[in-house]
Amino acid sequence: MTRPTLGVCYYPEHWPESQWAEDARRMSALGLTYVRVGEFAWSHLEPEPGAVDATWLRHAIETLASAGLKVVLGTPTATPPKWLVDSMPDMVAIDEMGRPRRFGSRRHYCFSHAGYRRECIRIVEALARRLGDHPGIAAWQTDNEYGCHNTVLSYSASALEGFRDWLKERYGDIGALNDAWGTAFWSMTYRSFAEIDLPNLTVTEAHPAHRLDFWRYSSDQVATFDAAQVDILRRFSPGRLILHNYMGRFADFDHFKVAAEHDGATWDSYPIGFLSERREREPEHAAHFVRQGDPDFQAFHHDLYRAAGRGRLWVMEQQPGPVNWAPWNPAPLPGMVRLWSMEAFAHGAETVSYFRWRQAPFGQEQMHTGLLRPDSSHDAAVAEVSSLVADIASLGTFEEASQAPVAIVFDYPSDWAWRIQPQGADFNYSDLIFETYRALRRAGLTIDILSSRAEDWSGYHAVFVPGLFAWTRETLKALSRFEGVTIIGPRTGSRDRNFRIPDDLPPILPEHILNARVITTQSLPPEVAIDAGGRNGHFIRWFETLAHGDGVEPVFNTPEGPGLLRQDRIRYLAGWPDTKLFDRIVADVAADTGIAITALPDGLRRRELGSWRFWFNYAPTPVDIRRHGAKKPILLDGPVLKPAGIALEQRG
Amino acid sequence: MTRPTLGVCYYPEHWPESQWAEDARRMSALGLTYVRVGEFAWSHLEPEPGAVDATWLRHAIETLASAGLKVVLGTPTATPPKWLVDSMPDMVAIDEMGRPRRFGSRRHYCFSHAGYRRECIRIVEALARRLGDHPGIAAWQTDNEYGCHNTVLSYSASALEGFRDWLKERYGDIGALNDAWGTAFWSMTYRSFAEIDLPNLTVTEAHPAHRLDFWRYSSDQVATFDAAQVDILRRFSPGRLILHNYMGRFADFDHFKVAAEHDGATWDSYPIGFLSERREREPEHAAHFVRQGDPDFQAFHHDLYRAAGRGRLWVMEQQPGPVNWAPWNPAPLPGMVRLWSMEAFAHGAETVSYFRWRQAPFGQEQMHTGLLRPDSSHDAAVAEVSSLVADIASLGTFEEASQAPVAIVFDYPSDWAWRIQPQGADFNYSDLIFETYRALRRAGLTIDILSSRAEDWSGYHAVFVPGLFAWTRETLKALSRFEGVTIIGPRTGSRDRNFRIPDDLPPILPEHILNARVITTQSLPPEVAIDAGGRNGHFIRWFETLAHGDGVEPVFNTPEGPGLLRQDRIRYLAGWPDTKLFDRIVADVAADTGIAITALPDGLRRRELGSWRFWFNYAPTPVDIRRHGAKKPILLDGPVLKPAGIALEQRG
Amino acid sequence: MTRPTLGVCYYPEHWPESQWAEDARRMSALGLTYVRVGEFAWSHLEPEPGAVDATWLRHAIETLASAGLKVVLGTPTATPPKWLVDSMPDMVAIDEMGRPRRFGSRRHYCFSHAGYRRECIRIVEALARRLGDHPGIAAWQTDNEYGCHNTVLSYSASALEGFRDWLKERYGDIGALNDAWGTAFWSMTYRSFAEIDLPNLTVTEAHPAHRLDFWRYSSDQVATFDAAQVDILRRFSPGRLILHNYMGRFADFDHFKVAAEHDGATWDSYPIGFLSERREREPEHAAHFVRQGDPDFQAFHHDLYRAAGRGRLWVMEQQPGPVNWAPWNPAPLPGMVRLWSMEAFAHGAETVSYFRWRQAPFGQEQMHTGLLRPDSSHDAAVAEVSSLVADIASLGTFEEASQAPVAIVFDYPSDWAWRIQPQGADFNYSDLIFETYRALRRAGLTIDILSSRAEDWSGYHAVFVPGLFAWTRETLKALSRFEGVTIIGPRTGSRDRNFRIPDDLPPILPEHILNARVITTQSLPPEVAIDAGGRNGHFIRWFETLAHGDGVEPVFNTPEGPGLLRQDRIRYLAGWPDTKLFDRIVADVAADTGIAITALPDGLRRRELGSWRFWFNYAPTPVDIRRHGAKKPILLDGPVLKPAGIALEQRG
Repeated sequence: MTRPTLGVCYYPEHWPESQWAEDARRMSALGLTYVRVGEFAWSHLEPEPGAVDATWLRHAIETLASAGLKVVLGTPTATPPKWLVDSMPDMVAIDEMGRPRRFGSRRHYCFSHAGYRRECIRIVEALARRLGDHPGIAAWQTDNEYGCHNTVLSYSASALEGFRDWLKERYGDIGALNDAWGTAFWSMTYRSFAEIDLPNLTVTEAHPAHRLDFWRYSSDQVATFDAAQVDILRRFSPGRLILHNYMGRFADFDHFKVAAEHDGATWDSYPIGFLSERREREPEHAAHFVRQGDPDFQAFHHDLYRAAGRGRLWVMEQQPGPVNWAPWNPAPLPGMVRLWSMEAFAHGAETVSYFRWRQAPFGQEQMHTGLLRPDSSHDAAVAEVSSLVADIASLGTFEEASQAPVAIVFDYPSDWAWRIQPQGADFNYSDLIFETYRALRRAGLTIDILSSRAEDWSGYHAVFVPGLFAWTRETLKALSRFEGVTIIGPRTGSRDRNFRIPDDLPPILPEHILNARVITTQSLPPEVAIDAGGRNGHFIRWFETLAHGDGVEPVFNTPEGPGLLRQDRIRYLAGWPDTKLFDRIVADVAADTGIAITALPDGLRRRELGSWRFWFNYAPTPVDIRRHGAKKPILLDGPVLKPAGIALEQRG
Repeated sequence: MTRPTLGVCYYPEHWPESQWAEDARRMSALGLTYVRVGEFAWSHLEPEPGAVDATWLRHAIETLASAGLKVVLGTPTATPPKWLVDSMPDMVAIDEMGRPRRFGSRRHYCFSHAGYRRECIRIVEALARRLGDHPGIAAWQTDNEYGCHNTVLSYSASALEGFRDWLKERYGDIGALNDAWGTAFWSMTYRSFAEIDLPNLTVTEAHPAHRLDFWRYSSDQVATFDAAQVDILRRFSPGRLILHNYMGRFADFDHFKVAAEHDGATWDSYPIGFLSERREREPEHAAHFVRQGDPDFQAFHHDLYRAAGRGRLWVMEQQPGPVNWAPWNPAPLPGMVRLWSMEAFAHGAETVSYFRWRQAPFGQEQMHTGLLRPDSSHDAAVAEVSSLVADIASLGTFEEASQAPVAIVFDYPSDWAWRIQPQGADFNYSDLIFETYRALRRAGLTIDILSSRAEDWSGYHAVFVPGLFAWTRETLKALSRFEGVTIIGPRTGSRDRNFRIPDDLPPILPEHILNARVITTQSLPPEVAIDAGGRNGHFIRWFETLAHGDGVEPVFNTPEGPGLLRQDRIRYLAGWPDTKLFDRIVADVAADTGIAITALPDGLRRRELGSWRFWFNYAPTPVDIRRHGAKKPILLDGPVLKPAGIALEQRG
Repeated sequence: MTRPTLGVCYYPEHWPESQWAEDARRMSALGLTYVRVGEFAWSHLEPEPGAVDATWLRHAIETLASAGLKVVLGTPTATPPKWLVDSMPDMVAIDEMGRPRRFGSRRHYCFSHAGYRRECIRIVEALARRLGDHPGIAAWQTDNEYGCHNTVLSYSASALEGFRDWLKERYGDIGALNDAWGTAFWSMTYRSFAEIDLPNLTVTEAHPAHRLDFWRYSSDQVATFDAAQVDILRRFSPGRLILHNYMGRFADFDHFKVAAEHDGATWDSYPIGFLSERREREPEHAAHFVRQGDPDFQAFHHDLYRAAGRGRLWVMEQQPGPVNWAPWNPAPLPGMVRLWSMEAFAHGAETVSYFRWRQAPFGQEQMHTGLLRPDSSHDAAVAEVSSLVADIASLGTFEEASQAPVAIVFDYPSDWAWRIQPQGADFNYSDLIFETYRALRRAGLTIDILSSRAEDWSGYHAVFVPGLFAWTRETLKALSRFEGVTIIGPRTGSRDRNFRIPDDLPPILPEHILNARVITTQSLPPEVAIDAGGRNGHFIRWFETLAHGDGVEPVFNTPEGPGLLRQDRIRYLAGWPDTKLFDRIVADVAADTGIAITALPDGLRRRELGSWRFWFNYAPTPVDIRRHGAKKPILLDGPVLKPAGIALEQRG
């Protein structure tokens, strides 16, 4: 049982010291609890090489603490100062085209650079020694948004050296690498690890095993880079939470690995900014939700990062108004800031922290709104935050997120694998996962995300494993012990971990689990869809022809063969379903497993938290939730929810 | 009172000397007055380093002069010879991606390169000393189309060095720069000017103040580069006009600054080539005017460059037929060459010069038509030029351009600022200005363009100031003294000159002028429009929520707040109007100020010059101008104007 | 009289030696005759520098030969090993942006690099000496798909040096080059060959004559590179065919020149892969044939390469199922593999060889299907191959391709010229040729392609010469002696070979041949079409205004002038016809020359081979060929052809 809290991101180095106390007072008066500071302040902490001086930061922390606020202190390693970059110019990342990515914005470093890692350890230790035991500090944030601006993969000399060592460690001798990768193809045999280059600037695409290993290496560098900071913080600032703020729609490194060393996971939620990325693919959808954000996008990330955080979730940055970085930046519909915040709590978040306190009148993000305008007046979100504070108070303590009836397995390397080899231009792993999630949400379900390292699925009625490129030992173990229904495919188990098609053909499962194999794969251009029969919808983008043996029966067929196979509690899905077909598949699984579902109308979403069921209206029109299964008494805004309305009921 | 003249661009170095006299004779016979020569002839003037020999050019000038023609001599600095580039390879510009922009076409130089500047001074002085006092020379053109092919911004070592010096000059000490830019953001604090890089190849966008200053620096280099030539020409060739040929739809440097040192301004008018740039955004419009050009594009540039030339305007290059450089190059509708030429005179041009005399059968522009075909036969435009010569003769002397009833303020740095920080993908300053201009033209108005350095607007009924990113001292002065109606916004006054949002929020005007401020800004994706009420049209692309106090009243409202505010003679426009709303706003302003307007049909345009009113039909169908307010007697083609028709009447 | 054979591509180095014999047995049992091996095996042949060991390859060849198969041995020069690249890093090509194109895929070499040429001679000689007299070897393939992945044009130091020498050889002295190119334009005069750069990274487009000469030089390097291998193979492996496998839709080098030294020509036919390139331009067409491929694409390339091979044609790689390299990769409609193969034979192919025997489970092409799946089971194509073997047996010997009634002249440099100077964004020479070919095919005609070096057209009723940028001596000779009808234009003869517009204007033909000239050229944007009158269709993309004199009459007119001129047996076509107009022009020519035509319905195509007439149904619906002129008795699948059906009849 917990009571959710609110927070805000604050940059004392942007404002006169004389203003800090008043800011702190107003934060506190607004009902905020946490304040994140410091994550871009290196040049203020160490204006000259070696001259670390955190006096001002101590003063800021104390000012905030005096007002009753708790500080989340960011390590400043996402923005090394100019003098540091000048002292070792090769610390910057090199882009895929071979160009240095220079100073002048942020994240101008290569994760593989040993010299920069030493500098990070130095500054973090300096900060932790000076401030780590300060009672005002409740938590740390390492760096900021790892990978932002496409910074995980760097094609630098440091990365090359590190990659060769990593390969040597992984394969032992070069012959093993040649065998594993299959370098017989196109005469790519290597005689030593020293012959191996980074997989960029090749004449045509580089070898997929080469690329996947470089991605794994690069992901590992993020984890190693982070771990060095965690070590120091655990040592010099014990008892504080260690967190990182991940991003939405971003899978360039294995977040489960980084978060495993932390005390939870947080993410930065910009619903409208992210929606704009869907404008091209889903123009009508994007137009419909242009001021609300996608109704499933936030939910998905809450569930994903709650998994990464092993149950502990924050929103470290919450959009409070128009942002500056999307192609177009409209204002949220009134009420959405409150809705987004409450939805995070419904998904188990402990804290929602707004980005940022006061809009900066200078710099790259000057058009990013905050809670206050540059003149310190209240911007639009403040009234919604006040209302939310009252809501929270009225609801009392919140239960913790309980196990959902259904789950989806998420695997970062699968995202890399299918970006390396999509085979169809629109086959994207994260999209496939998200389409699966959406289908379950449209049915009114509460969903958990499971790591591909989870080895116990007990308690779920059904688990979906779409597009997992190579089985993990843990997933196979979980699958074999699982008593619920598992829906695998398409493309699941279609490679071994060296990016080879298995000798026995996908999906590489023993006959007693699934006596079937994929004999043809097709990617389908937008003008081709395969009819799943009658009112069932279609397969789009991807379809596999399946051969099957004893004990397997098709659930339904298409003109190109079975659309869904069933063998006991295992299902294999032959392709990428469109919306209609996805709904049918979810309905079938629900019927099989006895899960209660409700077809929700456009924009209405619900989520269970302990004994509560929340309802959220993302649609631009009102909706009466009683028509969709809600029963009185209804708390907060219901039962007729206007746009951005929230309701709450006790589960039956 | 003046009589317009015609001219042509000629390349004696492309043809045998034996042909020159006959060419000159035919030019003269056609009724041409001016001949531009020499602007790409450096390798013919100095075939070996140091061996300047202008004998052939003198002979060409004398041949032309003997036929009664006046010469405009171009300095050849847009095309340095290969030997010169080889002697200092670092003189070429560096593109944003860090690649040298090499010899092999034209404009292969960096404005910041001191060595190349010296070479330019040398060759211009050599030419001016040899030919500057020749009576056949009536004018000089410095260089050619500054900035063409994206050459203003160069990321070279010379530019870096120059930029650092320029910053030092501007800010004095580095602390002032840090304060002005706001380098506290993302730890970008600099310890010295030597730490500052050029703002390219950064991980994500560079700091906007950094980028704007680099743009200002780069624009200044163009002016300085030009001024060195002007100095020499004034000294060695006194009494001749000094001109430069600017381009259409191009604002990469401050043309007002360069033109301030000259004796007028000229531009290169390619109506059909430029129209093709609008195909993607306005496909139906582009299809409708595919052989005529946009009906407002030429007019706008005539008015802009007449302002830059402080009343003196030429068209230095006029499209005579299909060009070679647009994606597609159709032929003009018969009559358009005559129409475009006469329209230039209606906007105050003294001379219209065709590009070029004879189509070159070789080189990059071999598909660019001229007055003559490669075989010296008449190409299609010749008959229109002959007709035009007769028209001019029939009209007698022309009056000079008189002050228009309305004006628009144009500011080059605002174009840079909003390209640096559009905030909405389609927010473009030049487009906003042009949409404003179009709206006034659709109402039949004659328009002036005012520089943002103009400090006196007296005589105008109304002045529009859209999108001016930062107030200039002069504009504020003009505004405060102005007795007409001023329409400012959107986005006007939203930054200080260091690219900061003002502490008191935009538009930074004292309460007695405008007691209102912008409290939210939104960029609107194409699927979102804000209803301006009833028959009023919509705001698109951009909308600002305005708070206002005593003395201010909304002229009309939208669901998101006031669309237009009024305080005495000041109006503030909250967003980017669509066509319908723009028409409504113009109509309101006209009603307020007593300006007579007429809603012109598609493609029909008019322009007043002294006591004359010209009518031009850009539409592909005939139009009877008597239905739109023209009164007999009507000169030239009217009253029923066929496509490309021109009419003329005495103003009432 | 011949009997067609089948083959397959095989990579013994990808599979255990123990598997080879069984593979060979199954190939033979399936009815295959040829097996291509070795073309990517350099690192297996020479695992350490200098240690060439072809023992394994000899063993593979013997294993195949023992099973009755004939080997086509590829030289491995498309994939030099890593150690070789490391030994001379400057051997890689440099892309247009100046970046090295590195090891890690294939074709990582520059054709101009002398060191690499020596290495190629060394390895080819080593192979030829060791295996050249082996009786199992029936043919050689030099390298693999010259130019694939955009590798003809390389901007390396080697290329620069070679280009300067080539220019010196061509022009003798620099003055001749300056005159030929027309370097007076934009001061591009050169003082020596050493001043000439490669035409990349220029500020705007480089000089067209410069670019065309660099393209000619680059094409020549391919021929020279290839010739060195041919010399060795002729010497050490006499009596074997020497071949190369060309690509579809690819004209970056002069294939006629390379093939002239060989014993025929082969190409790699991927009908569905190539169709996807048309999705953007012809979306409905691409959707209609998404699983069949374009109905004319294969035919065109068979005819083109049969011309290049002087009558001898193979398909070296035939698509057997989904490929890996198109944006989307659907499966062929059942029957298409058989249809494509038989169609090749109908066009005179001797052999069709499938790519590849067994799908590789590793490497870049792991998603490319073969005849066998990775688990060695039969993939979908095997049944079709079996059926085809039976078809061939049932038909007995095939006649050779006889002369067609009509022909089209194809010229590689014209493709380069119009890519250098399209003037209209969609003016593409290969497209124009293909549209002409399609129009003739829609009329049911059998077509020959003629090289622009062919000097005898006798026997044809009509020859089309569209878009030939500069007359070749041979084409002029053929034209002047030809007794059939010649249709030239648009754009034919519009330049001399130095890329100049001729002094007398295009199309540079003597009056007694064609007393007409082009006086205006227009490229037409998609929204503009010129009506060819009544039911005649329109000109699109390109139109020329023609002046004509005595003896010339318009066949039909447009509002912009004549659409087609006629003078005796010469026709000049003024623009790019749309489908309807092309059909009308073909019908007129047929009527003039007495060729019998039949308007074929969508997807039905026919082709005559000796006394046979083949019918192929590419449409997704059945068609009764008796309605389109077929007469009983009909062999194979007719008379009602289902999708992918093939029929055969004796010509009347």
